[in-house]
Amino acid sequence: MSRFVAHVTVMLKPLVNDPAGLAVRDGLQALGFEGVESVRVGKRLQVTLSAPGPDEAASRVRAMCDQLLANPVIEDFLVEIADGASDS
Amino acid sequence: MSRFVAHVTVMLKPLVNDPAGLAVRDGLQALGFEGVESVRVGKRLQVTLSAPGPDEAASRVRAMCDQLLANPVIEDFLVEIADGASDS
Repeated sequence: MSRFVAHVTVMLKPLVNDPAGLAVRDGLQALGFEGVESVRVGKRLQVTLSAPGPDEAASRVRAMCDQLLANPVIEDFLVEIADGASDS
Repeated sequence: MSRFVAHVTVMLKPLVNDPAGLAVRDGLQALGFEGVESVRVGKRLQVTLSAPGPDEAASRVRAMCDQLLANPVIEDFLVEIADGASDS
């Protein structure tokens, strides 16, 4: 078994309303930042896990997203396995 | 002016306690996922802005992080400008 680090990005789907993003956009404009058109706010998770190989690690993390880390009704997710697995 | 999309990743610094990450790790283990060693939870923001060039866009977004998007006492941030600026 090797140790892998998976980076998971969870963002609201493009058509889903994002009040947090609107608040951040308004805050940036209130601070004087010009040219900000839109802001979307999502989650980034870093999961360290042991698995037989990178493909198996990615498939486990995708299952985690389906069951807990993301809400597939309103969110999209992307799983990336970082290079440099270390034996454990 | 061109339009750029900046992807901002904000994570707690490695030595800062992350209760949300611990809760997610325990939740994954309770669901039967084996081999999960640790989970860190952060934010991912997608900022669409207009700027004269990619370097200028990145420097503006880093200023936004310093002032609003991240807490530099406990968080690290990374700014990436996506390829494919479109004129506006």
